[in-house]
Amino acid sequence: MKVDVKLSPLAAEARTHLDATVIVVDVLRASTTIITALANGARNVVPVLTPDEAATLKLRYDSANVLLGGERGGVKIQGFDLSNSPLEYTEETVSGKTIVFTSTNGTEAIRKTTSAQTVLIGAYLNLEAVARFAVELGKDVIIMCAGNQGSFALEDAACAGAFCMAISRLTSVEESDSARAARMIASSFDTVIDTFHASAHGRNLVNLGFSEDLEYCARFNTTDVIPEYYNGHLIIRQKKSH
Amino acid sequence: MKVDVKLSPLAAEARTHLDATVIVVDVLRASTTIITALANGARNVVPVLTPDEAATLKLRYDSANVLLGGERGGVKIQGFDLSNSPLEYTEETVSGKTIVFTSTNGTEAIRKTTSAQTVLIGAYLNLEAVARFAVELGKDVIIMCAGNQGSFALEDAACAGAFCMAISRLTSVEESDSARAARMIASSFDTVIDTFHASAHGRNLVNLGFSEDLEYCARFNTTDVIPEYYNGHLIIRQKKSH
Repeated sequence: MKVDVKLSPLAAEARTHLDATVIVVDVLRASTTIITALANGARNVVPVLTPDEAATLKLRYDSANVLLGGERGGVKIQGFDLSNSPLEYTEETVSGKTIVFTSTNGTEAIRKTTSAQTVLIGAYLNLEAVARFAVELGKDVIIMCAGNQGSFALEDAACAGAFCMAISRLTSVEESDSARAARMIASSFDTVIDTFHASAHGRNLVNLGFSEDLEYCARFNTTDVIPEYYNGHLIIRQKKSH
Repeated sequence: MKVDVKLSPLAAEARTHLDATVIVVDVLRASTTIITALANGARNVVPVLTPDEAATLKLRYDSANVLLGGERGGVKIQGFDLSNSPLEYTEETVSGKTIVFTSTNGTEAIRKTTSAQTVLIGAYLNLEAVARFAVELGKDVIIMCAGNQGSFALEDAACAGAFCMAISRLTSVEESDSARAARMIASSFDTVIDTFHASAHGRNLVNLGFSEDLEYCARFNTTDVIPEYYNGHLIIRQKKSH
């Protein structure tokens, strides 16, 4: 099984990947938030590129069951119900709801993967579950780092490296140069929190008062929920239906 | 001084960098070959994108003083005088000549930097000289990895990391996430040869019979020659004229 890492969304434009399993990683915080929302009973998450698109979409749905979530510059968008903090996506708030969601990097990365057969959302929270499922699917794996405004983000590369390690513990893999590099980056830190604090985006979130979010995003394997992007929606992948 | 690394040429499209010093790194082998050619007395090196462009240019010059150099698929191009092996660029062969040069990755990376004020060519051979000069210039530094056909290449990232380390030994730097990552990649290997053997491109060159080239490309600080890209030509940067 080949494993490749796209270290930034721009780097991903070099190739198409029709027959691969793509794992989108935006660990601070879109991936983590999407996983949390679905784990806490959200009906689905609809990633959109702009706040305007989100507002338009809300009008089209039954508004009572729709929440608008996401961020610009790390903070809640005016008129939105929720920010991009996973801690806001409690069962009480999101159960049964559709979340229309936009974030600076994560939703663009998801939209870039539309040519892939299977697109999954990964973070530390569901690392083992996603790695196992990707191995079960048996296709080549591309881990797509959302990055930071088009550029490389250390925390996503390190999380991609953690996925490479998890997958290589389960099966024999042929790693690309970038997959090896991602593993080296992941291995350079003792803890995930250290990684976050070393990254520009992590430091920015600390400055914005989101230290608790970082602690939450650093947790390993708290859920088996695997969000899959399908037909414009993120829903929980039902393993048996495949 | 800010230090950033573009881990692949595609990643470089995200930003312009008018006022920065750009160091182009294609350590296997274009950077190393260009440095060697100029160190051995070549008048200049003219990087072009295609073999056709090279042939056309040769007709326009005084042909007796022009050599065509470069590679496609790692090997010499039909009708060319020299391949991309630095070992061919001896004083006897290149002294006084103009080298019209094309390679799969390096020449494209150089062409992408045309908006930058200063564009230098770096490799292990001239690491310390280029790092010192970049620090003397006092501008922000962008290290541009040529990569492998648009994708990330481990050996260029590691060499970029070596540049980050060399620069940070000379001055106080503010490193981007990708600069930190490049340093981690560089630190993951005991020797440069280990890096080359771990990289897809390095293994390919070994398979093509270029192990001696790898040994040569791994040498540190054998020359003070700093190639600069100026007006379509690569010439030796004269430090005093600045």
